[in-house]
Amino acid sequence: MKEIRGGITAPLGFLAAGIHVGIKKASVPDLALVVSLQEGPIAGVFTKNRVAAAPVLLDRLHLRQRIGRAIIINSGNANACTGAMGLTDAEEMAGLVARGVGTAPHSVFVGSTGVIGQPLPMACLRRGIPTLVKRLRRSGGAEAAKAILTTDTKAKQVALRTRIAGRRVTVGGMAKGSGMIHPDLATMLAYLTTDAAIQQRTLQRALLAAVTRSFNCISIDGDTSTNDTVLCLANGMAGAPVLRAGSPEFALFQRLLDHACFSLAMQVCRDGEGVTKVVEVVVTGARTQANARQVAKTIATSNLVKTALFGEDANWGRIMAAIGRSGVRIDPNKLELAFEGIPIVKEGTSLGSLAERRIARIMRRKEFTVTVHLGQGQAAARLWTTDLSYDYVRINATYRS
Amino acid sequence: MKEIRGGITAPLGFLAAGIHVGIKKASVPDLALVVSLQEGPIAGVFTKNRVAAAPVLLDRLHLRQRIGRAIIINSGNANACTGAMGLTDAEEMAGLVARGVGTAPHSVFVGSTGVIGQPLPMACLRRGIPTLVKRLRRSGGAEAAKAILTTDTKAKQVALRTRIAGRRVTVGGMAKGSGMIHPDLATMLAYLTTDAAIQQRTLQRALLAAVTRSFNCISIDGDTSTNDTVLCLANGMAGAPVLRAGSPEFALFQRLLDHACFSLAMQVCRDGEGVTKVVEVVVTGARTQANARQVAKTIATSNLVKTALFGEDANWGRIMAAIGRSGVRIDPNKLELAFEGIPIVKEGTSLGSLAERRIARIMRRKEFTVTVHLGQGQAAARLWTTDLSYDYVRINATYRS
Repeated sequence: MKEIRGGITAPLGFLAAGIHVGIKKASVPDLALVVSLQEGPIAGVFTKNRVAAAPVLLDRLHLRQRIGRAIIINSGNANACTGAMGLTDAEEMAGLVARGVGTAPHSVFVGSTGVIGQPLPMACLRRGIPTLVKRLRRSGGAEAAKAILTTDTKAKQVALRTRIAGRRVTVGGMAKGSGMIHPDLATMLAYLTTDAAIQQRTLQRALLAAVTRSFNCISIDGDTSTNDTVLCLANGMAGAPVLRAGSPEFALFQRLLDHACFSLAMQVCRDGEGVTKVVEVVVTGARTQANARQVAKTIATSNLVKTALFGEDANWGRIMAAIGRSGVRIDPNKLELAFEGIPIVKEGTSLGSLAERRIARIMRRKEFTVTVHLGQGQAAARLWTTDLSYDYVRINATYRS
Repeated sequence: MKEIRGGITAPLGFLAAGIHVGIKKASVPDLALVVSLQEGPIAGVFTKNRVAAAPVLLDRLHLRQRIGRAIIINSGNANACTGAMGLTDAEEMAGLVARGVGTAPHSVFVGSTGVIGQPLPMACLRRGIPTLVKRLRRSGGAEAAKAILTTDTKAKQVALRTRIAGRRVTVGGMAKGSGMIHPDLATMLAYLTTDAAIQQRTLQRALLAAVTRSFNCISIDGDTSTNDTVLCLANGMAGAPVLRAGSPEFALFQRLLDHACFSLAMQVCRDGEGVTKVVEVVVTGARTQANARQVAKTIATSNLVKTALFGEDANWGRIMAAIGRSGVRIDPNKLELAFEGIPIVKEGTSLGSLAERRIARIMRRKEFTVTVHLGQGQAAARLWTTDLSYDYVRINATYRS
């Protein structure tokens, strides 16, 4: 497996484009389109938020047909809490693309991200989509990746290639997300493409597995958005045989997809709103995986832990307090805590000021691992979290100003 | 019922004092003592955090005897995650007070607040406690209230009086708390005294009811500390007859206690770390009270909602997103949202920019109410939350520096 250039258009047969159509006030790209030369199976994972945005409702509906050809995404407006009109607008977006590229509306998927509760400026979209279709090209991945951003500071792209049954098979992807980032998806849109040949049911299972191990393991602010979407479109154009679930070839593809999702998830973390640090939280020795995850989640979302990370303060007591209030029946006297393998707590008590000084040095790093051992069983979990900085407050207090 | 001066020493027969003994580096009071002339029933409510501090473990043990005479509280060190030595130290604190005031060690209760994981400087306490005992006096409530503070900017006191069966009965109290504030207690210590005559079992029930309606309804940062404690000591010295549960006289006392706890809880909220606003979150029309509380809690702890409050941004979409991810099976199309009674969302969609401008004006206030109607049933809940400001991050990033 090797990393290559090209992002979402790296696999064979994919075109993309991104332009400014006027949804955002500033003259920056705000509409992206990804199209495959051939239609193919598409898999999707969506937000668990019960206030789901119109594009999510539409995509879920279109996914029943299991066939995809194009994905249109706008930034600057989430088309959420927009009622029946929002759904009509999302349908019209899909219809405009379907007409432009010559396909059925149900094979067009729609994504939106931005402010909640305002109607989509449809005039901009009616004018913009035909222009966008004309601009589609192989090298359009980078500009599409830019057009889906909101408070993100960097475009997030990935492209990985491996050889399967003698053929070069590629997975490409792009993502946006920097706030409302939390397990079970985030205000996060991620789109993946591949030229692998695969049945929809197998692709869906592969995508769900990859998402579980990547996007569902990152937390920036504990919020889950109304618009979260991960889609993966496969057009089979690499010419490799159809991947069978359980085969060694499928395992190679799963690895490709896992790495692509993980790369995008880490890019989202590092570009999190106001983020200066990305910290891996590992919980071991739990009775069950759910327990391990619950403890990791409580640490990863504690504002007191996150501000201590920002302040580079080795205030491990806040981690202990978070473990204690997680709801899991832990035994405080068995707790162990380590930073990058250096123990600071054994049997629930401090190992002293020398250990604390070593921890303090580790905390100056941009990325490090905190390990908690519960001493109760064999189950483990891990999550990635970020610090909470002045800039997080600034960005979110002034988001719409 | 009327508010009077005097704080924790307002009820008859209570003395207090607060001095600097050297637990804190700065020369500010760090040790408080409250003593009743007569011993009496004491009630307690403690943190649910499984990593409970040594003083909490000791107080739970002493509470089995149901009798209290004195409460000693230090600030600057939480005596948490300090293992067996921490418990020995807490016991010694109680013993030193018991010797000083001439009572059994099990009728002395201990509270600690401050940094986690460092041993208590017992030399300071051994030197300080005898001095503190000598300083006990009726007018000592204010200095005791000061000596229990950490990042608090203001002392928190209350004293309320009513007439029960022809006698003046008084409840006094003091509290500390400004971070780690969340339902099911907070890094919050609250001590109440009364000269009412009441059995311990009745007092315990009354205190639990008052705490449920006050301290358990405020959230500053979603964290629950290792040290949370609320104690209420009753010495019966007002001369009124013993209060019987269910009697009209008991109802008067419950009201006194409710108001005292609520006053202290609101003082804690307003003095929350970096707080510029206190917002009441009311959820109505839920199927069950647990559902209503769950929705209110998700809104009250969302960093995106809290930064929008700080930025005075009428970004109600973030409240909708919080409702949607609360885990409660809501129907998005039935949601209603109002600020100070002014509706902004009906049937899940926006009422437009005029309503939004009115909401924006309300958000400039220091205190206001947000009401969510779920349209599913009759149950309701309410919580108080605060905004998330630059100062919250500053205070918590630099806490130990």
